[in-house]
Amino acid sequence: MIVVKVGGSEGIDYDALCDDVAELWQEGQRLVLVHGGSVETNRLAEALGHPPRFVTSPSGHTSRFTDHATLEIFEMVYCGKVNKGIVERLQRRGVNAVGLSGLDGRLFEGKHKDSVRIVEDGKVKLLRGDHTGTVERVNVHLLNLLLDNGYLPVLTPPGASFEGVAVNVDGDRAAAAVAVAVKAEALLLLSNVPGLLRDFPNEASLIPEIPADRVEDYLEFAQDRMKKKVLGAAEAVRGGVRRVILGDARLVQPVRRALAGRGTVVS
Amino acid sequence: MIVVKVGGSEGIDYDALCDDVAELWQEGQRLVLVHGGSVETNRLAEALGHPPRFVTSPSGHTSRFTDHATLEIFEMVYCGKVNKGIVERLQRRGVNAVGLSGLDGRLFEGKHKDSVRIVEDGKVKLLRGDHTGTVERVNVHLLNLLLDNGYLPVLTPPGASFEGVAVNVDGDRAAAAVAVAVKAEALLLLSNVPGLLRDFPNEASLIPEIPADRVEDYLEFAQDRMKKKVLGAAEAVRGGVRRVILGDARLVQPVRRALAGRGTVVS
Repeated sequence: MIVVKVGGSEGIDYDALCDDVAELWQEGQRLVLVHGGSVETNRLAEALGHPPRFVTSPSGHTSRFTDHATLEIFEMVYCGKVNKGIVERLQRRGVNAVGLSGLDGRLFEGKHKDSVRIVEDGKVKLLRGDHTGTVERVNVHLLNLLLDNGYLPVLTPPGASFEGVAVNVDGDRAAAAVAVAVKAEALLLLSNVPGLLRDFPNEASLIPEIPADRVEDYLEFAQDRMKKKVLGAAEAVRGGVRRVILGDARLVQPVRRALAGRGTVVS
Repeated sequence: MIVVKVGGSEGIDYDALCDDVAELWQEGQRLVLVHGGSVETNRLAEALGHPPRFVTSPSGHTSRFTDHATLEIFEMVYCGKVNKGIVERLQRRGVNAVGLSGLDGRLFEGKHKDSVRIVEDGKVKLLRGDHTGTVERVNVHLLNLLLDNGYLPVLTPPGASFEGVAVNVDGDRAAAAVAVAVKAEALLLLSNVPGLLRDFPNEASLIPEIPADRVEDYLEFAQDRMKKKVLGAAEAVRGGVRRVILGDARLVQPVRRALAGRGTVVS
């Protein structure tokens, strides 16, 4: 069993990804696909006059604030355009894919963080109405039900809070939670870089290996979203996943390449 | 087993619908929900500068032309915003809903109509690149798999062509195909009118009953989308569904009301 997460950044080749996934699936590889959609979401939000709002916490951490309108835009892109685009590509390749969000069957379930402390104009404020959360429980029953019956699950945020509210969850960490829950032998986190780079954006500076117990030493090299991937990788390995590979989704055979160890291997 | 289809027009009360569906489900009623999203789709298409294009056939029939960009907008609204909005409402009411499009697991499968003959400037032309289709096969296996395991399926267009291409299918006729395939005892087609009106839009002119073998005599009273509902109703009854009720989704308990015969009953 492997879990493949593909990002939503510029340059990702979804056709090449789906070629590779379809071939592996038809060879009998048990597989769950998880995807993102961040770039498209920002594009749609701008087009609809509701640009993303980023807030800064008192400790200096920057994050996206997800109000209800943002969550709906997020759902339109992640669960609509991107998810059904991938499902269609797989169906055209003869794979009986089923696209689901973490809300469906409570596939991704966790705590809802409704308010966030932010710094604005030098003052600390409490901002309510945030729709973000974490994944604490994965509905493995539903995933196995689909897999055992020949359906390939294609999963995407949002998730469900314990109260059933839709919450934005991080896709990489959701994929890590899925990999741990289904006891995957490998988790692949594919994006538009070759892996973790010592000297970003110089692709020749790829770090080929990270020992899972020394992840903290490598965090300084991770930019932006790569931080979540490295953290997700460490969570997965600690949860029993033998190998996590941060690989490149801009090339042909991105899944086979990553499985062969091309990229940054966390183990 | 009942199949409930709720439209996507102005005035529909999704909260009341989900209250009613959740209560019936918790009382043990086996149920599949199918929904539309037409008004929201037109709104988003306008906002994105890609308004719906309507074309007229040589026989004078008007329909929406679904190019690829329109299909993506359609997927954003139907599979994203509306589907996940309903799934979230049901999850908040304690129902383990699973939202799927007809593409997922090829739930709605049929022929792809790639080109359409239209009349433009008095001339007949062939317009290619249409993404519309019909539902000829329903994946009952997947529906029963979900229902037997406690998941309430929430279904929406698009469907899949036999080649796996996403195709826009009519929601009412898809719901009729589902009702026939799962051998439902009743199909409810709920929208923002009380049923078929003899003198539209006078709601006091409701036609309470239509014998299934005389549907053609009543088509003259059906405006626009109501025509598809009446046709879908006739298809369902001919396919073995004992009762089809065209009911009102603007009121509380819309499902119970329709089941009690409020609306237009086709049998």
